[in-house]
Amino acid sequence: MALRAAFRNRRGVSGLLSQLSSCSSHVRVCVSPVLVAQQRSNSTSPKLKVDFDQSSGVAVMHMQSPPVNSLSLDFLTEFCIGVEKLEMDKSCRGLIITSSQPKVFSAGLDIMEMYGKSPERCGEFWKGVQEMWLKLYSSNMVIIAAINGSSPAGGCLMSLTCDYRIMADNPRYSIGLNETQLGIVAPFWFKDTMVNTVGHRATEIALELGLLYSPSEALKVGLVDLLVPEDQVLTTATQTMTKWLAIPDHARQITKSMMRKPTIDRLTSNREADVQNFVSFITKDSIQKSLRMYLEMLKKRRG
Amino acid sequence: MALRAAFRNRRGVSGLLSQLSSCSSHVRVCVSPVLVAQQRSNSTSPKLKVDFDQSSGVAVMHMQSPPVNSLSLDFLTEFCIGVEKLEMDKSCRGLIITSSQPKVFSAGLDIMEMYGKSPERCGEFWKGVQEMWLKLYSSNMVIIAAINGSSPAGGCLMSLTCDYRIMADNPRYSIGLNETQLGIVAPFWFKDTMVNTVGHRATEIALELGLLYSPSEALKVGLVDLLVPEDQVLTTATQTMTKWLAIPDHARQITKSMMRKPTIDRLTSNREADVQNFVSFITKDSIQKSLRMYLEMLKKRRG
Amino acid sequence: MALRAAFRNRRGVSGLLSQLSSCSSHVRVCVSPVLVAQQRSNSTSPKLKVDFDQSSGVAVMHMQSPPVNSLSLDFLTEFCIGVEKLEMDKSCRGLIITSSQPKVFSAGLDIMEMYGKSPERCGEFWKGVQEMWLKLYSSNMVIIAAINGSSPAGGCLMSLTCDYRIMADNPRYSIGLNETQLGIVAPFWFKDTMVNTVGHRATEIALELGLLYSPSEALKVGLVDLLVPEDQVLTTATQTMTKWLAIPDHARQITKSMMRKPTIDRLTSNREADVQNFVSFITKDSIQKSLRMYLEMLKKRRG
Repeated sequence: MALRAAFRNRRGVSGLLSQLSSCSSHVRVCVSPVLVAQQRSNSTSPKLKVDFDQSSGVAVMHMQSPPVNSLSLDFLTEFCIGVEKLEMDKSCRGLIITSSQPKVFSAGLDIMEMYGKSPERCGEFWKGVQEMWLKLYSSNMVIIAAINGSSPAGGCLMSLTCDYRIMADNPRYSIGLNETQLGIVAPFWFKDTMVNTVGHRATEIALELGLLYSPSEALKVGLVDLLVPEDQVLTTATQTMTKWLAIPDHARQITKSMMRKPTIDRLTSNREADVQNFVSFITKDSIQKSLRMYLEMLKKRRG
Repeated sequence: MALRAAFRNRRGVSGLLSQLSSCSSHVRVCVSPVLVAQQRSNSTSPKLKVDFDQSSGVAVMHMQSPPVNSLSLDFLTEFCIGVEKLEMDKSCRGLIITSSQPKVFSAGLDIMEMYGKSPERCGEFWKGVQEMWLKLYSSNMVIIAAINGSSPAGGCLMSLTCDYRIMADNPRYSIGLNETQLGIVAPFWFKDTMVNTVGHRATEIALELGLLYSPSEALKVGLVDLLVPEDQVLTTATQTMTKWLAIPDHARQITKSMMRKPTIDRLTSNREADVQNFVSFITKDSIQKSLRMYLEMLKKRRG
Repeated sequence: MALRAAFRNRRGVSGLLSQLSSCSSHVRVCVSPVLVAQQRSNSTSPKLKVDFDQSSGVAVMHMQSPPVNSLSLDFLTEFCIGVEKLEMDKSCRGLIITSSQPKVFSAGLDIMEMYGKSPERCGEFWKGVQEMWLKLYSSNMVIIAAINGSSPAGGCLMSLTCDYRIMADNPRYSIGLNETQLGIVAPFWFKDTMVNTVGHRATEIALELGLLYSPSEALKVGLVDLLVPEDQVLTTATQTMTKWLAIPDHARQITKSMMRKPTIDRLTSNREADVQNFVSFITKDSIQKSLRMYLEMLKKRRG
């Protein structure tokens, strides 16, 4: 019952209706004792579990915010603090991000942070999204996304900021910046990050149509770098990390910064205007109406 | 006889000599009663047939300027007015551009507008080309190119401005910005549009060599998005349009503008200088000589 | 014995340890009488052999600086003078660059120019590298790289400046900007040249990891344009050149300049700062230590 209530209150921006609802029914039906225990302690426990192995210098960050790792302001705040801590720890050279939730890496921005909220609150939320992107995209650590479930919208953005993306080769999962399908728009820095990954044309068509790609399509277009069987995502990420850490940190970090600095500078020099744009867009009556219709559609599907 | 005279006066910049001449012999030999009727009425009738289906919100624009839909100033003017009308009509959400001429989508800029003309006239012509590009590339409508024939030079440019390109899978057809083969140069905004579609390196090699791609090569390099049998080009375009129109207009339009605005701004802020560049280049003795040699070669082939 | 001494003093920045050492043993063991003759005369003879065919307008530049065509300041100076001479000769329209050394196209920047040298000398060397890039990337000639051996680091850069790259289909060879593996960093114009060739994401991953690609991988990612059997590299380059020279020079040159000018302008307007950056980076104690360790590792392998 607690689980169902959680589901009613937390929804990711995904547009991936069928997948999310199949996911929700899975959570309701197949939930394991361990998972229930984790989720029960959720109200007081952190939304992240961080395992840091001093000997390898690699941290693994497990997102465990039921049901679908939606990026709420609370989650983003905890996430940014977690990344910041690792960034400051000179002994931590690599970070693997993965999900503890079944079937979902992250469902993206929490729609409840955008619906029926004050402009001030919306602005705070958006600063949190910016902060997550800035921390990840400019990190000195090697960051690998171990994408063990669907990763729409903000979940895809999070993946795109990483140095390498390994996805579970499960055709039921999908990944993409599908905001347009919900009537909202990926901002310029989401777009820039995707252009840097798959080029201008693939981004244009993906963002105009709000495309969600299957793992094999995502590999083909370059949205992810490697597919492996679902139970090997994390071990492959760990092996891949070893390869990356064989490169001298200093040279790799300067190179990474050279590749990404112009894109990062575009946001940092337009941060306040970007917040204003988001707030004035998302608080429009027409957009709020779209979000309400989407939420009602979600409810009916779960009905 | 009227047809042959038309052929003598209207030629597209294509460099696709063999194809054009096979095309011209086709027009002379295989011309159907219907086609003759259309062409006979050409002097007074429009060069475009526009079918607008109010129920679907989709217009189909058939280019019917014999023999090869060359982009003359007259054609461009009529074309721009036609697109403008649809753009202003709020009930029109999608536009499909196709050709009524056999074997050719559009043979590109009309070489007769560039040969032996006054600088003033050349300038007017070039403004027309700019206007076509601006109208198409910045359109709020979904525009799909139903490329049912060869599409060299300006025909390729027109295709590149669309949101999606479907081409007839006929190895006799080709598509590309082949200006260099004629000794002329694709201007920066042709280049920008192609870079946005196929990336920097493919554009560099294509423009330096003036490459014309077969449909399968064009698909591989990303110059077109889909190949279908020739008799299914228009029906597939219609089906594809349905998918695009399922996306909320507002979000799609903002996204499209975000992707294209920097490229559009480059031309709008350099329009006059671009006209001057074109006029001073095209009126050079050496370039006029190249064009004359090309026209004579065309004549001989038809001899 | 003279050869072995040469080997001790000249090393390319390659990180391709196993390949270089197999190469060095090859030079010692399999050296042919002709090669010995060339190499014996090396101290007085030029490091380049230029064959210019007036009838075709094509020059072939054979790099013959034993053992591995390292880009020393002497070599770069001679190379730039050679290119400049051909550039000034109006009858020379095409240039093919290839190697006379077995198994290596060019091993890249000569590490001895960066180790234990004064800042002034390092600066002179770096200006030479810039000069080579500027001359090649902005050349009015068609330049084809006939890559008949491994081409790491600066050898890859040299290849990337060409209009077309043909590589020997020998899996023992590799190509890539692998500077990061040595703890040094490819500067922004190396990066720009690679982004222009293979796009942003492929460049990011290649430069962060210092990747060296096999010929088939290089073809797949777009780092080279064509693979042919090793004994056909030069003849294929010659045939390909004929195709390129069929294009009117003037139109091709304007097009090439349009594609490359923004990248060239970035270096020309930052040349002095780029020299300062290089000098202050390469003379750092930590970097000098990296280079010394690398040199010692090379010595041991040859031990």
